[in-house]
Amino acid sequence: MTAAIEHVDDVYPTRLEEGFSTLPRQDKVVWGTAADGPMDQPTLDSYDERGYLTVPDLITPEEVAELRAELHRLSNDPETRADERTIIEPASKEVRSIFEVHRTSDLIARLAADPRVVGRARQVLGSDVYIHQSRINFKPGFGGGDFYWHSDFETWHAEDGLPRMRTVSISISLTDNHSFNGPLMIMPGTHRTYVSCGGATPEDNYKSSLVMQGAGTPDQETITKMADTYGIDVLAGAAGSAIMFDCNCMHGSNGNITPYPRSNVFLVFNSVENTAVAPFSAPAPRPEFIGARDFTPVG
Amino acid sequence: MTAAIEHVDDVYPTRLEEGFSTLPRQDKVVWGTAADGPMDQPTLDSYDERGYLTVPDLITPEEVAELRAELHRLSNDPETRADERTIIEPASKEVRSIFEVHRTSDLIARLAADPRVVGRARQVLGSDVYIHQSRINFKPGFGGGDFYWHSDFETWHAEDGLPRMRTVSISISLTDNHSFNGPLMIMPGTHRTYVSCGGATPEDNYKSSLVMQGAGTPDQETITKMADTYGIDVLAGAAGSAIMFDCNCMHGSNGNITPYPRSNVFLVFNSVENTAVAPFSAPAPRPEFIGARDFTPVG
Repeated sequence: MTAAIEHVDDVYPTRLEEGFSTLPRQDKVVWGTAADGPMDQPTLDSYDERGYLTVPDLITPEEVAELRAELHRLSNDPETRADERTIIEPASKEVRSIFEVHRTSDLIARLAADPRVVGRARQVLGSDVYIHQSRINFKPGFGGGDFYWHSDFETWHAEDGLPRMRTVSISISLTDNHSFNGPLMIMPGTHRTYVSCGGATPEDNYKSSLVMQGAGTPDQETITKMADTYGIDVLAGAAGSAIMFDCNCMHGSNGNITPYPRSNVFLVFNSVENTAVAPFSAPAPRPEFIGARDFTPVG
Repeated sequence: MTAAIEHVDDVYPTRLEEGFSTLPRQDKVVWGTAADGPMDQPTLDSYDERGYLTVPDLITPEEVAELRAELHRLSNDPETRADERTIIEPASKEVRSIFEVHRTSDLIARLAADPRVVGRARQVLGSDVYIHQSRINFKPGFGGGDFYWHSDFETWHAEDGLPRMRTVSISISLTDNHSFNGPLMIMPGTHRTYVSCGGATPEDNYKSSLVMQGAGTPDQETITKMADTYGIDVLAGAAGSAIMFDCNCMHGSNGNITPYPRSNVFLVFNSVENTAVAPFSAPAPRPEFIGARDFTPVG
């Protein structure tokens, strides 16, 4: 009886002592229709099937230049570097990510509220949306680190309390992504399978997991099976293009020995009908700069 | 006067206190002709221009299977693991490379002497050839390490005493190389420029350089300029295919978070008219399992 009640409360249990398992997705992927615009039905259908889509030229070269200047400014600003919302690469001391940039940069706040951006998020999620997380990512050249395979939703559910899969990420490239400079890799179709991870969440897990990943990392057996079944798509694309992907896609990226750094603006939109509750598998929610508690709609 | 004499002795000075510089190549790239077989003139011309070529299906799927079984056997053999010719990945304790395999494996000795292999080396180098170095490389999945940009010739000249650029590597893939599992990357055309590296060679440099690279590593400014000028080719290819590349190509590879390991047989053929002398920029030659002193022709 208790077990049944727990299932009602949590359709996506994870960080269990029993170890790893996979469960089918319980939620729709696309909640809106072509009538909501700006995307047409074939685009939405493809997103539904593969769990991601790409948008060439989402923003103009002028906007790219403006955003790159903003990134440069932020990553060289001593106050930003010292801020707890800034993640520094342990070896090189270079800035890897700056969180909650839609609150600290007007330019990025405007970008998030732009109809080209928030309009697509609303259409996929079929409702108003708010920003669950925003960040700028830097992947330096000449040895930028890798990012191991994971589903964002597993963490957002376990540690931030997002109840269901009704969340989309939009990554806007500010540099060209080649196959050779550590681009995003997605296993298309994996968004339909939830990987329940083994092991309890340590306190303040986010402090190490943002850099290295710990609890919430899928096991190698499941990753191998998924890669064999679904394959791996390498998402190259020019600066100004964007990738929209479902919260439950299995994704990661390799390191980068080339001279070409990779940077992007990363915005996570969650449906206002799916606002965060208490974490499902962690002692306390992560800080608000990582998982928002302000559910004000964007745009 | 002294300077002029030194130039006669060493057309490719490196590891100098003055630091990094670039010099034009002083040697031909292709020494034979189409009449020598097995490759036609367009193939040789392309090699001349780009510094590498690929050979799909150089060996059969049956031969691939046989060689993979041999790799498996060697990398699990306690005696081979303990041998100084075997390089172990520091973190994972997995075998990364086994050197001088053409002496310890009959199968690989036969492969090296096969006309499909040695015939191509003879044709490019325009003479009989001997094996300067042989090895099996393993790049494990789930986090196999990267290999930073370098020219093999710089090291073979500085530390092994190969006088001129008349050496070719043949890498035979035993696993599929995708763009996403750390394949070889070459900057096409860089074989025509010699990067003279800064700094003296430490004693026993090879012990660390096989794993991490130290002396002999080009500077980031030169790498950036070369990448901007020549671009980066990512050499994907199926198991059984081969890559032949000139000793002075700038090349490297990224790490690999995918489940798919990458392994290959790597054979370095040098012209018998270019046999090793004393090292040009090191206190003593590297061990013979890394740089041969037996110049007996192959095949």
